[in-house]
Amino acid sequence: MARRVTIADIAAAAGVSKGAVSYALNGRPGVSEATRTKILAIAAEMGFVPNRAARSLSVSSAQTVGIALRRPARTIGIEPYFMELISGIEATLSGGSFGLTLQIVGTVQEELEVYRRWWAERRVDGVFLCDLGTSDLRLDFVADLGLPAVAVGGPVEGARFPAVWHDDVEPSRDILEYLYTLGHRRVARIAGIPGLLHTAIRDEACAETAAGLDFESATMVHSDYTGEQGAQITRRLLSSANRPTAIVYDNDVMAVAGLGVAHELGLEIPEQLSLVAWDDSPLCRLTHPALTSLTRDIPAYGAKCAEVLLTLIGAAEASAPPGPEARAFSVQCKPAQLSPRGSTGPALV
Amino acid sequence: MARRVTIADIAAAAGVSKGAVSYALNGRPGVSEATRTKILAIAAEMGFVPNRAARSLSVSSAQTVGIALRRPARTIGIEPYFMELISGIEATLSGGSFGLTLQIVGTVQEELEVYRRWWAERRVDGVFLCDLGTSDLRLDFVADLGLPAVAVGGPVEGARFPAVWHDDVEPSRDILEYLYTLGHRRVARIAGIPGLLHTAIRDEACAETAAGLDFESATMVHSDYTGEQGAQITRRLLSSANRPTAIVYDNDVMAVAGLGVAHELGLEIPEQLSLVAWDDSPLCRLTHPALTSLTRDIPAYGAKCAEVLLTLIGAAEASAPPGPEARAFSVQCKPAQLSPRGSTGPALV
Repeated sequence: MARRVTIADIAAAAGVSKGAVSYALNGRPGVSEATRTKILAIAAEMGFVPNRAARSLSVSSAQTVGIALRRPARTIGIEPYFMELISGIEATLSGGSFGLTLQIVGTVQEELEVYRRWWAERRVDGVFLCDLGTSDLRLDFVADLGLPAVAVGGPVEGARFPAVWHDDVEPSRDILEYLYTLGHRRVARIAGIPGLLHTAIRDEACAETAAGLDFESATMVHSDYTGEQGAQITRRLLSSANRPTAIVYDNDVMAVAGLGVAHELGLEIPEQLSLVAWDDSPLCRLTHPALTSLTRDIPAYGAKCAEVLLTLIGAAEASAPPGPEARAFSVQCKPAQLSPRGSTGPALV
Repeated sequence: MARRVTIADIAAAAGVSKGAVSYALNGRPGVSEATRTKILAIAAEMGFVPNRAARSLSVSSAQTVGIALRRPARTIGIEPYFMELISGIEATLSGGSFGLTLQIVGTVQEELEVYRRWWAERRVDGVFLCDLGTSDLRLDFVADLGLPAVAVGGPVEGARFPAVWHDDVEPSRDILEYLYTLGHRRVARIAGIPGLLHTAIRDEACAETAAGLDFESATMVHSDYTGEQGAQITRRLLSSANRPTAIVYDNDVMAVAGLGVAHELGLEIPEQLSLVAWDDSPLCRLTHPALTSLTRDIPAYGAKCAEVLLTLIGAAEASAPPGPEARAFSVQCKPAQLSPRGSTGPALV
């Protein structure tokens, strides 16, 4: 494990005194708001976790953070993304002696009610907001409550709290250009849930990239991320007159399901069809051929989200909480990288 | 959703008065210990959830239950079992207005320390114990703490709290007899983690069944449940001189990995090799051919575990907690059923 980040490390990186870092982290006067914002951002980026054991335990502190997931319970079990995210969050929380409270909710109204109750009863010190929407009423609701929060996704315009996010534009371009270079002229993308921010960003980036390339067809179909829909849509696409020679899936479960359908239809992979998975859980390396993927390190992403939330909680619990500017920094993680494997090859048909 | 189970329902099922049920559930005198035990068991089996909203909120109640998982964080993300279990637990907890706190631990000592701290600080009202060992020091530790607990697995001899479990003996027999009937004489099983109770039960039941049948070889190899080991061991088994014609996997992730290896080696499934997965997450239906599985409803299992724990907490929080007998009832769920799919067929080689 890496050495623990200290206040001295942050001071060196920010080019300020240790005293200034301490003022900033503890929300005390003595530094300008601009400096405070900068120090908090650097502390979060370096992975600073407040040393809980060294602080007196406040009775109002729950030593717990919360995550509410608004997806059907039965689909969460099969989606490695969430469990990988949670495992990364856990790894950081344990280091800071924080627990994680998990709640599955059915509607956005239920989700808001959970946040209200958690905060009113001080069951949590902060929350992660997942599955950001293109227009997301949770953002203002949570900020209005004063509940420390981190958006798991972004970028979020005018956010009143930090977002930890990956750029989805560059990978969208990368994958379409890669397929184009391989000679594919009829491509399809089975996208995720419409209305989600990252789905919209990918939709737009793919449409723009496709417009700049000489594709015969570039189809896009939305889905609910389940293997069932992944299989269904793949079957429909492959039964059409001018079937695509390459399909990109917005998650890996759908790509695995699509590979099953291709095998079932007797198609040789990659000779007759290329397949690409977005997100690269170990699932992608279990199939034959292994799936070409857009790889992100989801556990590391979860760990970063937790670091930012703990930094924020450390600041918020101090006597003078930081101003709104200090809360709105955001951390951009490395975008997904293309990992070419056996499921993609030159277009031969 | 099913109608909420009431005290009247429990009274009817137990053949006692509503008053007796109320006494039993609230830990008040007025019923014998034997009757109390019976009523608590029936209440748990019927899925009774104490109506928290109707009770005055005690300050000492955390309204939260905990689950500590002692598996490497990165392997949990790919194992649908845990997330399906948790989703089932969540569904019941939400109905009872309880939250779930999740912690990933590295060692059993860390796990015990988590229970001690959770209970000392009243962060949880009860816990689930997963991954029971053949000799499990957590059982006495948690009972000695007085922390309400439910063992997720069993049967547990001399347990001082309830176990919710599936019989693993019958499915072990079923699967070997099924393969024998299909003509397979060389079979292998890639078992789970040694030292776990259910691994030991399956090991013994499989060995006994195999001894009674006329197998040429019945190999058993332990693993860590990961796809990596599933693939590795499959490759080794299939490269041996007298390779098995059928392989049973103790979980579905390993079976998916084994199918990938079989495809890679150019084996026709099921003509040249039959494959069976234990636990039947949607993963088993995404592959081609779909995987024959020993099917259990894991979300329903999680829901049952949560019902039993909430019943126990309801009883423990009352002024006079039930005696040790009342805490030790156990609930046996329907054993895994064989779901034959395309990955198994007659032995032709």
